[in-house]
Amino acid sequence: MLDDFQYKSNKILLKFCSCYFNFFYFYCMKFSFKNDYSEGCHPNILHALLQTNLDQQAGYGEDDYSLQAKELIKEKIKNPNSDIYFVSGGTQANLIVISSILRPYQCVISASTGHILNYETGAIEATGHKILNINTEDGKIRPSDIIPVLEGHQNIPHQVMPKLVYISNSTELGTIYNTKELEDLFTFCKANGLYLFMDGARLGHGLTSEINDLTLEKVAELTDIFYIGGTKNGALIGEAIVINNQDLQQDFAFNIKQKGALMAKGRLLGIQFLELMKNDLYFDLAKHANNQAMKIKNAMKDKGVKFLTDTYTNQIFPILTNSLIAILAEKFDFFVWEKINEDHSAIRLITSWNTSDEAVNRFIEILNK
Amino acid sequence: MLDDFQYKSNKILLKFCSCYFNFFYFYCMKFSFKNDYSEGCHPNILHALLQTNLDQQAGYGEDDYSLQAKELIKEKIKNPNSDIYFVSGGTQANLIVISSILRPYQCVISASTGHILNYETGAIEATGHKILNINTEDGKIRPSDIIPVLEGHQNIPHQVMPKLVYISNSTELGTIYNTKELEDLFTFCKANGLYLFMDGARLGHGLTSEINDLTLEKVAELTDIFYIGGTKNGALIGEAIVINNQDLQQDFAFNIKQKGALMAKGRLLGIQFLELMKNDLYFDLAKHANNQAMKIKNAMKDKGVKFLTDTYTNQIFPILTNSLIAILAEKFDFFVWEKINEDHSAIRLITSWNTSDEAVNRFIEILNK
Amino acid sequence: MLDDFQYKSNKILLKFCSCYFNFFYFYCMKFSFKNDYSEGCHPNILHALLQTNLDQQAGYGEDDYSLQAKELIKEKIKNPNSDIYFVSGGTQANLIVISSILRPYQCVISASTGHILNYETGAIEATGHKILNINTEDGKIRPSDIIPVLEGHQNIPHQVMPKLVYISNSTELGTIYNTKELEDLFTFCKANGLYLFMDGARLGHGLTSEINDLTLEKVAELTDIFYIGGTKNGALIGEAIVINNQDLQQDFAFNIKQKGALMAKGRLLGIQFLELMKNDLYFDLAKHANNQAMKIKNAMKDKGVKFLTDTYTNQIFPILTNSLIAILAEKFDFFVWEKINEDHSAIRLITSWNTSDEAVNRFIEILNK
Amino acid sequence: MLDDFQYKSNKILLKFCSCYFNFFYFYCMKFSFKNDYSEGCHPNILHALLQTNLDQQAGYGEDDYSLQAKELIKEKIKNPNSDIYFVSGGTQANLIVISSILRPYQCVISASTGHILNYETGAIEATGHKILNINTEDGKIRPSDIIPVLEGHQNIPHQVMPKLVYISNSTELGTIYNTKELEDLFTFCKANGLYLFMDGARLGHGLTSEINDLTLEKVAELTDIFYIGGTKNGALIGEAIVINNQDLQQDFAFNIKQKGALMAKGRLLGIQFLELMKNDLYFDLAKHANNQAMKIKNAMKDKGVKFLTDTYTNQIFPILTNSLIAILAEKFDFFVWEKINEDHSAIRLITSWNTSDEAVNRFIEILNK
Repeated sequence: MLDDFQYKSNKILLKFCSCYFNFFYFYCMKFSFKNDYSEGCHPNILHALLQTNLDQQAGYGEDDYSLQAKELIKEKIKNPNSDIYFVSGGTQANLIVISSILRPYQCVISASTGHILNYETGAIEATGHKILNINTEDGKIRPSDIIPVLEGHQNIPHQVMPKLVYISNSTELGTIYNTKELEDLFTFCKANGLYLFMDGARLGHGLTSEINDLTLEKVAELTDIFYIGGTKNGALIGEAIVINNQDLQQDFAFNIKQKGALMAKGRLLGIQFLELMKNDLYFDLAKHANNQAMKIKNAMKDKGVKFLTDTYTNQIFPILTNSLIAILAEKFDFFVWEKINEDHSAIRLITSWNTSDEAVNRFIEILNK
Repeated sequence: MLDDFQYKSNKILLKFCSCYFNFFYFYCMKFSFKNDYSEGCHPNILHALLQTNLDQQAGYGEDDYSLQAKELIKEKIKNPNSDIYFVSGGTQANLIVISSILRPYQCVISASTGHILNYETGAIEATGHKILNINTEDGKIRPSDIIPVLEGHQNIPHQVMPKLVYISNSTELGTIYNTKELEDLFTFCKANGLYLFMDGARLGHGLTSEINDLTLEKVAELTDIFYIGGTKNGALIGEAIVINNQDLQQDFAFNIKQKGALMAKGRLLGIQFLELMKNDLYFDLAKHANNQAMKIKNAMKDKGVKFLTDTYTNQIFPILTNSLIAILAEKFDFFVWEKINEDHSAIRLITSWNTSDEAVNRFIEILNK
Repeated sequence: MLDDFQYKSNKILLKFCSCYFNFFYFYCMKFSFKNDYSEGCHPNILHALLQTNLDQQAGYGEDDYSLQAKELIKEKIKNPNSDIYFVSGGTQANLIVISSILRPYQCVISASTGHILNYETGAIEATGHKILNINTEDGKIRPSDIIPVLEGHQNIPHQVMPKLVYISNSTELGTIYNTKELEDLFTFCKANGLYLFMDGARLGHGLTSEINDLTLEKVAELTDIFYIGGTKNGALIGEAIVINNQDLQQDFAFNIKQKGALMAKGRLLGIQFLELMKNDLYFDLAKHANNQAMKIKNAMKDKGVKFLTDTYTNQIFPILTNSLIAILAEKFDFFVWEKINEDHSAIRLITSWNTSDEAVNRFIEILNK
Repeated sequence: MLDDFQYKSNKILLKFCSCYFNFFYFYCMKFSFKNDYSEGCHPNILHALLQTNLDQQAGYGEDDYSLQAKELIKEKIKNPNSDIYFVSGGTQANLIVISSILRPYQCVISASTGHILNYETGAIEATGHKILNINTEDGKIRPSDIIPVLEGHQNIPHQVMPKLVYISNSTELGTIYNTKELEDLFTFCKANGLYLFMDGARLGHGLTSEINDLTLEKVAELTDIFYIGGTKNGALIGEAIVINNQDLQQDFAFNIKQKGALMAKGRLLGIQFLELMKNDLYFDLAKHANNQAMKIKNAMKDKGVKFLTDTYTNQIFPILTNSLIAILAEKFDFFVWEKINEDHSAIRLITSWNTSDEAVNRFIEILNK
């Protein structure tokens, strides 16, 4: 509703801010590779918030923006029958989805690296459900991992009933599923009465990895339910839960409200996903993040650095000498992930939609010194 | 960090948008008196989001803005020992607070009009706790209401143990507590081993009512825990939970995370409360909303209209003829609250920080015709 | 497996004990009319425990006695497709049944006198479900009571979804449902997508009341799920949950185990129900209890005593002068139920399968003095 | 209250039954080594039930027998300040104890063989709490096992807070804790703000093992809470929860009622524990069970049989050829526990308070053939 002039002047303003901060950072502060949610959001989102701010809208996700964003997502997944709901964050999405699907005695299967298992303060158990743990090297689950779990839970009714498989793509270790792997897993789940749920907090990064052959459409086809993560890919908040299996759609909104996740101003979520989905901004942002990570990875590989796991998304886990880590830590923020031996540790570097070439180049520069 | 020029040009831009929409509404669309969360947020908030957008910050509420906003609130309540946490909405605040305080066999007491009792899809019960209901006319709870509840729950261990009193200010009916009432209630609670929790989704409206004699400082003194509602008073999202009773402070953050309410980009909440608390914007916005409601109320009183309850905040419940309601409904959105008799119903009108004089005048104009 | 001699000598022994205690009580101790679970169990049960004690049996309800008892119940309800499970007590039965049926956002409707509402320490809410309260005078629910509850819960998804109607027969006030009432209620439930669950802690007393026209078979036909209470009618422990609606049968055993209600020595429950169901002992015991209560009631009526509610089962609520209550209390234990005015109170008298003529006659004797 | 004559005639009757069944079993049916809850209960208990049956008693554990049994246990543990509660079974005891202690975000640590982890249908998680798993070879937990768990849960508030250590004695693998081990563990727990809870479903077997040096008194001294298991050691049902830590005593009864575990006829539990505790019957029964297992174990050792774990209680895990297992399975019931290789499997044999010399000798006889 803003005319062109306002739009442009606004764009310029936002662009200016961006430059200003980049400048500011590289000469005054440490740049952070700690995570992909250190900044606010992509300027287009702020612009849209500004533009729509005083428009009166229905509450609780019934606003025009949310409706439009849902339509856009349905087009992209090519499934008009999927149901879509926006919630604010990943733990919230996980606990709502899982508790909405399972009966009290049913449980969820997760890789040992699964976010729900380790970093959600027992949010799933707090809704009454056990998580069965599958040990994996690469954060991924395969049918062969699930078979022994099913075999080991035949003592009815003394054991929980496995009913839902939880996977992440990209995973917590930065790895991804290819189409064949997801097909195999989904086929196995269907043959065994299991639901398949994909945590897509970093789905954009998975789907734009240089080694990826999956599409959003395929993800919708090969899962019962998944979500498209906004928080870690340019939104202020927001994950879009997509329910493909119609058996799981009924009454879903009640669960969102009951868990305190139904926003009065649902427009905040709708506007963000509308912007992210328009012109595939969502994928451009993720691709950018991946590219910046790959630049650092390749520079390291050239110097002979080894990695904890071989990733092609926006998370890399290089193994460095502790002395080099100390030098890098003077200029950059990141997590030391794991001690490897007396002299070496693996660090985790995460790039984001906003990681600038300056930051990446500077990091590589210091490495090379 | 923006210089003065950008700040001003930005202000102008935001001002322009505001005018543009006001114009648009009154000649093209119905204005809505349905609730106080139909619009986005106060322009200062958007401006601050814009200004801080690319600043890298720690996640999960450890950002500078959140820390500053907490300090500001502590100053305003004159209690440096209170703990403050930001969450996204009212149901979330209610379920986290209540479940964090109660042991499994303890329950909460609420007025029969309480939001937790009627409009939160059983969110409190979903955390395992019963709500005991007190019938009230005006949405308020008095010690004399609680005594029979305590007396009726002496059959140990066959009955739940009342432990927490939940009140709202302003209440769901738009009424408010005065200082004497809150003192009496808090004293009673302390004498009976009960905690007192105030739902402040519309606390601003309560504290700026023309008949109010409470202060934010007093509220902090006379409750164990309360929250300052942002969503219904100019924020996009956000409620600031204030824990005054130090016994209730321990480990509170775990509960927020477990319920899926800990935002990765906590800055979104911090920035908003920082803006709202600066220069008492929060109270100015609430006062504006109240004033607009009072204008309509007084205009109606002049015409002899009766009200369901006598309120002095931003919610009014006039009893009108059904024919007049039909006429008003052509131009304005609002809820028909309760059928009174064959010809009359009570409607609910809610004004907000953004309800313009134009909207109010136009409404009165139609009334007068 | 005991031969006739042992059986008889055993019977004699048990009979002897019974006489001994009756004698002992009426001349040395107060007789208690406080409840129907003051004694152990019917001698036949003890005898069967003795007889089967060292028989090795499968655990967890897979023993022969449980299987036989289930068959016997299926015969009596004339429904081979019902599923039957034994648990130890009423609160346990209630919480398992209700939590097994409801989805997290669904709730149960109960009369305001409902046991689940008042005397189970929030057991239902502890499983995550709200109880909606219907005010009743006589402890019974009618379709006309439910209609406003359904109408008042249309604000989707902000309110819980009513899904299950909980009734007791006989009720907590000693009243009973007749066939017409139960038919109307069940028909209404089916028409409105509701399940009907009958708490049968005192089902025996309901079905043998002098004004009853229901049968066990009809109860099975006109409920989705109900239970046959043993604890209050001659068993040591035990309620037999009968699931008539096949949609509710799936995986039910998991719920029993998860709630800690699956007994390793399920034989204890099976043996008891086998004995109670054989030759309709269950109904004989309940009828005896009712008769004893009616004797007292009629004696009181003859003296012009009024009652709080007009009951025809083993609970009566006479209104007496406080002075008479004091005199009775010297010789008998009972609950003073409700203060009526300065001089009068209602007391509750409960008779049991073991209430002797001596106790009843003595009580009437004192009354008459 | 029965005189000597009745008592003796009753004893004779019970003795007779016992002989009768032993005879019956060894010539007509398979004897079961599947578990220690295949039979009813010790005759003394049946006798006491018979003797007290018609004595009117207060309900809900306030009966004289329960009070006496509690006093007797307090004497045996030499701690008058412990609180004691009786519940019906192990899963029930575990879920009540754990959920009564933990705040929503706190979790329990268990060995990977822990009953709560594997065989309770997610009962603990159903109360909202995660179980952290420690891999152990022998079913026991040592301080060195807990240290990495504590170190791995420092990411506040993103991870659950370990607060309670759950151990079993004897363990699910038949192993036991000695005094030194329990002292070390308890000291470690206290130093780290952890509670220690001992599942004593087979506590009798642990404390009467030939290699045991712990006493009941020491167990009460070195745990915050534990229970004395009746179900697996001669009772029909029943576990006695003993709360030594006074911080955990408050309001405990509410939890029992809320979870559906408060028996109306609590006398059933009281009478059993009174009988078991009198003259140390409890320990005699357990010792008998252990002895019978040791006879088989020693006979096997003499033949060179290896065992999965080296146990000295009533569970043994011999590794046998599959052909021998097949022969034994014709005459005896037991579980095949684990496949060892193509030709060998480990079986689990459990003896009980009622395992006769005939059964043991016959088993050994077949082995020797």
